[in-house]
Amino acid sequence: MDELKRRILSDAYVGEGGIIHVDMFLNHCMDMELMEHMGNTLARRFRGSKITKVLTAESSGIALACFTGWALEVPVIYAKKFQTGHIDPDVYTAETHSFAMDKTYTLKVSKRYLNEDDVVLLVDDILSNGQDILSLLELVSKSGGEVAGVGVAIEKATREGGKVLRRMDIRVESLATIERIEDGEIILA
Amino acid sequence: MDELKRRILSDAYVGEGGIIHVDMFLNHCMDMELMEHMGNTLARRFRGSKITKVLTAESSGIALACFTGWALEVPVIYAKKFQTGHIDPDVYTAETHSFAMDKTYTLKVSKRYLNEDDVVLLVDDILSNGQDILSLLELVSKSGGEVAGVGVAIEKATREGGKVLRRMDIRVESLATIERIEDGEIILA
Repeated sequence: MDELKRRILSDAYVGEGGIIHVDMFLNHCMDMELMEHMGNTLARRFRGSKITKVLTAESSGIALACFTGWALEVPVIYAKKFQTGHIDPDVYTAETHSFAMDKTYTLKVSKRYLNEDDVVLLVDDILSNGQDILSLLELVSKSGGEVAGVGVAIEKATREGGKVLRRMDIRVESLATIERIEDGEIILA
Repeated sequence: MDELKRRILSDAYVGEGGIIHVDMFLNHCMDMELMEHMGNTLARRFRGSKITKVLTAESSGIALACFTGWALEVPVIYAKKFQTGHIDPDVYTAETHSFAMDKTYTLKVSKRYLNEDDVVLLVDDILSNGQDILSLLELVSKSGGEVAGVGVAIEKATREGGKVLRRMDIRVESLATIERIEDGEIILA
């Protein structure tokens, strides 16, 4: 998706430890026009898949999931990662690990909102090691539903997530793919 | 806003401990058409305020903030509540307390994204004790920016948040107000 690629090349930068910073438009201060265009693009790519729900994990994928679900005219669920208030005790759970934080979280989705009739599109902002997406897959699998595929804004080809999912025969649509970092510069596929 | 009020009366329910459950359309499984209509309504109410940014707190207000910011054509920032990855070290911070969880969190916004030229609309899904909103106010105040007002989907008039903010002369727009619970039934204003 050219609009996103241009934005990455103009605004994103590589910080300490090779961290790619995209928080100026994607996951802290968010450009809503770009977000809507990305949601529409993901929705268009999955239009024939008879999707009934969009599922993401708290919190950075919520915005893109919302515009994707809105374009597909289906509800958007975010799996809870943090206990901040009442959570339905009757939930599907899956563990997920953050390598960045060296911390394990339990993702939770109320059993009311996923079932065996659902065809689910998993959405996130960034696909890196794929831990959150694999946990969302597990949640859908526990509900008996079907996963239509995975849609992300940015895939980091330097990490394993995309490869692992495709080897599992899961359709992965990335709006931009970071191929590698070369001398501190982001090289897109 | 009639559409939201009808939805509360038809779907929301009062659970144990007087907790009002709206997670079937507002903050776990989200109805995107309703969310867009709510965002548009908040945007319309604040249209004359020359808003430059919409600010919310992680995570349950992100969806409504997104559609409000989209309608106003301004960026949406969510203050980080959880450390899940890299956070810019140069941040404005404010403490917030969750009575439900008896836990204190630190909200953080990168100094890159708020400054003295900003006119900020604070958005959240629910206004109860107002702890998150008061902390967002503090963040904007630290940045030197101005708060145009507060927009929420549901205000609980049984709690102090709305009163406290209005006493501070802050404009609060609630799309539905829960007046009280009577025999386990939700009574709207």
